Amino acid sequence: MGKQKVCLDKLAHIFQIRNLLMRQALAECLGTLILVMFGCGAVAQLVLSGGSHGMFLTVNFAFGFAATLGILVCGQVSGGHLNPAVTFALCILGREPWRKFPVFFFFQTLGAFLGSGIIFGMYFDALWDFGQGKLIVIGDNATAGIFATYPSKHLNVVNGFFDQMIGTAALIVCILAIVDPYNNPIPRGLEAFTVGFVVLVIGLSMGFNSGYAVNPARDLGPRLFTALAGWGTEVFSAKAYWFYVPIIAPFLGAVVGVLVYQLMVGYHVEGEARDKAKQEEESVKLSNVTTKDTA
Amino acid sequence: MGKQKVCLDKLAHIFQIRNLLMRQALAECLGTLILVMFGCGAVAQLVLSGGSHGMFLTVNFAFGFAATLGILVCGQVSGGHLNPAVTFALCILGREPWRKFPVFFFFQTLGAFLGSGIIFGMYFDALWDFGQGKLIVIGDNATAGIFATYPSKHLNVVNGFFDQMIGTAALIVCILAIVDPYNNPIPRGLEAFTVGFVVLVIGLSMGFNSGYAVNPARDLGPRLFTALAGWGTEVFSAKAYWFYVPIIAPFLGAVVGVLVYQLMVGYHVEGEARDKAKQEEESVKLSNVTTKDTA
Amino acid sequence: MGKQKVCLDKLAHIFQIRNLLMRQALAECLGTLILVMFGCGAVAQLVLSGGSHGMFLTVNFAFGFAATLGILVCGQVSGGHLNPAVTFALCILGREPWRKFPVFFFFQTLGAFLGSGIIFGMYFDALWDFGQGKLIVIGDNATAGIFATYPSKHLNVVNGFFDQMIGTAALIVCILAIVDPYNNPIPRGLEAFTVGFVVLVIGLSMGFNSGYAVNPARDLGPRLFTALAGWGTEVFSAKAYWFYVPIIAPFLGAVVGVLVYQLMVGYHVEGEARDKAKQEEESVKLSNVTTKDTA
Amino acid sequence: MGKQKVCLDKLAHIFQIRNLLMRQALAECLGTLILVMFGCGAVAQLVLSGGSHGMFLTVNFAFGFAATLGILVCGQVSGGHLNPAVTFALCILGREPWRKFPVFFFFQTLGAFLGSGIIFGMYFDALWDFGQGKLIVIGDNATAGIFATYPSKHLNVVNGFFDQMIGTAALIVCILAIVDPYNNPIPRGLEAFTVGFVVLVIGLSMGFNSGYAVNPARDLGPRLFTALAGWGTEVFSAKAYWFYVPIIAPFLGAVVGVLVYQLMVGYHVEGEARDKAKQEEESVKLSNVTTKDTA
Repeated sequence: MGKQKVCLDKLAHIFQIRNLLMRQALAECLGTLILVMFGCGAVAQLVLSGGSHGMFLTVNFAFGFAATLGILVCGQVSGGHLNPAVTFALCILGREPWRKFPVFFFFQTLGAFLGSGIIFGMYFDALWDFGQGKLIVIGDNATAGIFATYPSKHLNVVNGFFDQMIGTAALIVCILAIVDPYNNPIPRGLEAFTVGFVVLVIGLSMGFNSGYAVNPARDLGPRLFTALAGWGTEVFSAKAYWFYVPIIAPFLGAVVGVLVYQLMVGYHVEGEARDKAKQEEESVKLSNVTTKDTA
Repeated sequence: MGKQKVCLDKLAHIFQIRNLLMRQALAECLGTLILVMFGCGAVAQLVLSGGSHGMFLTVNFAFGFAATLGILVCGQVSGGHLNPAVTFALCILGREPWRKFPVFFFFQTLGAFLGSGIIFGMYFDALWDFGQGKLIVIGDNATAGIFATYPSKHLNVVNGFFDQMIGTAALIVCILAIVDPYNNPIPRGLEAFTVGFVVLVIGLSMGFNSGYAVNPARDLGPRLFTALAGWGTEVFSAKAYWFYVPIIAPFLGAVVGVLVYQLMVGYHVEGEARDKAKQEEESVKLSNVTTKDTA
Repeated sequence: MGKQKVCLDKLAHIFQIRNLLMRQALAECLGTLILVMFGCGAVAQLVLSGGSHGMFLTVNFAFGFAATLGILVCGQVSGGHLNPAVTFALCILGREPWRKFPVFFFFQTLGAFLGSGIIFGMYFDALWDFGQGKLIVIGDNATAGIFATYPSKHLNVVNGFFDQMIGTAALIVCILAIVDPYNNPIPRGLEAFTVGFVVLVIGLSMGFNSGYAVNPARDLGPRLFTALAGWGTEVFSAKAYWFYVPIIAPFLGAVVGVLVYQLMVGYHVEGEARDKAKQEEESVKLSNVTTKDTA
Repeated sequence: MGKQKVCLDKLAHIFQIRNLLMRQALAECLGTLILVMFGCGAVAQLVLSGGSHGMFLTVNFAFGFAATLGILVCGQVSGGHLNPAVTFALCILGREPWRKFPVFFFFQTLGAFLGSGIIFGMYFDALWDFGQGKLIVIGDNATAGIFATYPSKHLNVVNGFFDQMIGTAALIVCILAIVDPYNNPIPRGLEAFTVGFVVLVIGLSMGFNSGYAVNPARDLGPRLFTALAGWGTEVFSAKAYWFYVPIIAPFLGAVVGVLVYQLMVGYHVEGEARDKAKQEEESVKLSNVTTKDTA
């Protein structure tokens, strides 16, 4: 046991990274990896089993609780955004510095890329079996939809844009309420679970149009992976270059979400706290004055 | 970063609302918007996908957890009623002033109206695709049931009235137990989750007759929206003017729920606490007397 | 508001019950009513909708979370047993006095009776519609199984007895672990949720044989109700007088559960705590002796 | 009541085991028994009911929450591993002594053996009914898959090995995050629930290939039971001696999981805590020096 301890301590010293941003980026990478690995894994299980081992509800559960687990793994280190739109919203509000945004975006996308790679490896035999030797993007036996999102037939691009915007706005409103320091009703440590429920509910009610990406990294990373892994560039050109919608729309949705929450709840609870603090300050001053006077 | 901070502070001052009732009304509006957006969104997903992306269970989950999220968003500000019947029950018990009731009722209905509007926009293409160019209230390809509730064929109006009354009474009994200051077994901050489970269970066991509105605002708001958005006045006249049942019956249910809870649990735990407080007071007096005597 | 307050206070004094056992019995009655109302309501929804508004999983969720809600409503007053087998197990262990057992049994059964009555009223139209004017115990369109449990075709009585015994033993082992003062890993206030998960899991894995009553009151109360409400005495005589199995077997299961938990975990954690307490006592004595010696 | 107390105290003294490792081994045995009893019970319910009383999702829920309950029952005593791969990972990290590993492995396997025995007894009639008098390992009406795992047709052994490795690595990463003393975001007492969600999510997304054993004891114990109970040695030889994969691969997965978590998160949070502790120590020394100087 003594030797093991020494050995472990040495390892701990060698591999320790002291740069905070790097550590946070790595944590975001692992968190998003977990989100996409479990989430896309559930889609793979549903598609490849032909419905015998999954349904849309299981995908919703998987993405929801995968978000919870991803946040639990990295939350203490990086805040557990797992989503560039969330990082963006927090930057807008001045709660995170803007320089974090590109770094987190890159590492979140990298994590999503790696997560879909793991699922590709895990269901390698099943993928070839299902596609009968082909990796197909659109049509019967298509498997690209396991990794990135593609719109339903009924959806045109304007509605699709609105769909992603609203979904992300709903996500941001709920997350802002959960982490608002002036409006925080949840016991410390349960934020991850609550965000998981938010993702679950978004999947239950907003998943029919185009599969509720509401996260540029979660969609772009796996799409890049499929492009490289054998599905080819069709993953970008399919459905009238749909791929840019789940990249751009979530950022607009983040702006909408920030506005709605701040105008309807945030500014008022914040202001109330500020007003109270001011009153107390003044009463302290006043009592000081009184004390001096009597002195 | 400096400029951003100044800018944000300015915005915070401009948009801060100092009137408490107005702030609470806005919060209730946003909370009910979230409840109806996610809840009716799940019904839309179930109906419009023809069952491939949902089932009755997913609707139950969505309404349950949407209630949780709605309460989390507004609970610290307004108490998170999201339901005029809940406000009514708390007014009866003297825990909220009666003047809040009409204000909350209006803003809850407004929130439900806006929430169903968002779902209408989100599933705009899918709605027209499903109805083949028509917005139908009753019959095949009917889509009005996505927003407001309509009774099943087997249900007559007396049973429907009883159904809504019992459902609301069950909701109120559970909520009163959860928020009873003398009988509160839940860690602070988990009330929202518990109410979500109540709504979930009501959906699992009381949803077959007419879709468990148990909330006048949740039903009236979306019904008004559908009347304006193109389904026409048939949404009110359909099924022998069913629309008034989920408006009136929940208030009667609230009275029943208050009575049942208070008679079977509430009065006794309250009374016990009062008796204890009195005893302590008397023993304090007694000891004072004793002290004086010995002095 | 002033008048309302006075009025409410008067009511509170009139209806307050000061007898503790009576108060606890009433609370158990309401808790079991909630358990059976939501649980049997879910079965009704599944059966009467022909599967469109429910499945076996929804029944499991409903019974599980209904147990949670029932315990939350009455737990602070009566402990929230909701089940004579649980009361029996706690009496065996000396944690509840034996005189509570018959009182709780009666009121739990009464609550189950009333709960099934409410579901009967709620789904009155649907019941007559489904049975085409008849209330049938066994066969196609049978509706008695909504309220009480009946065994599957493959089950003989010995296996059925074993089934109920094992189910109850599993319930008791988990409940004892949850409430064991020496082995309590759950934050205060979450016991009700954990028991709900126990009931859920029992339903998921032990529900196929005969519907996991594992609770004499939950089965007997609704069976009595169906006998009186029009299904007749066949509810007792059906399936070779099956009705006595879910009354007797759970008590045997409670004994088995107590034995298994105490022998494998309970006695050891309890003993450890006792040993520690003794050591501390002795070291105190010892130090007293030493102090005297040096003095 | 007096007599009962004396009697219970005597029993408590007789059956108390004072050897800590023995107590922990017994607790692990009961915990794994509960995991396998509820988990395999859900598979039995799904298979034997032909899908009417279960689906793959219910199996996932059952294994997830069964893990929660198993951990709750034994966690305070033994840590609640329920899985030799978890014990192995904690031994690698030096958090558990290596001598525990073989003892826990044996008792976990014994618990799984007993748990599957209980399910065999519980569904005895249903098993014979379903297999029409035979206990079949592979093919139509096969029932061996209720207890141990067998790979899908599409899976070759390399992919199967990778599948079990990745599944276990994912489990270990999440568990390490949950129990990491330097990165613990969960309120004390909720670890068991979180691990349950991990097991649930693994089942939702990694269960299609071969049924997510990810636990040597959970697979070997029931397989031994089926071999003895009448299915014969075919349970080992079937599918090209598949049985060794879920025994060996999880240990490799544990190594991978430990590496991934430590390199991406663990070493850095641990190092940060160490660095802080050092700084504080030094500042204390420095202030001591200063104090001496001034003295």
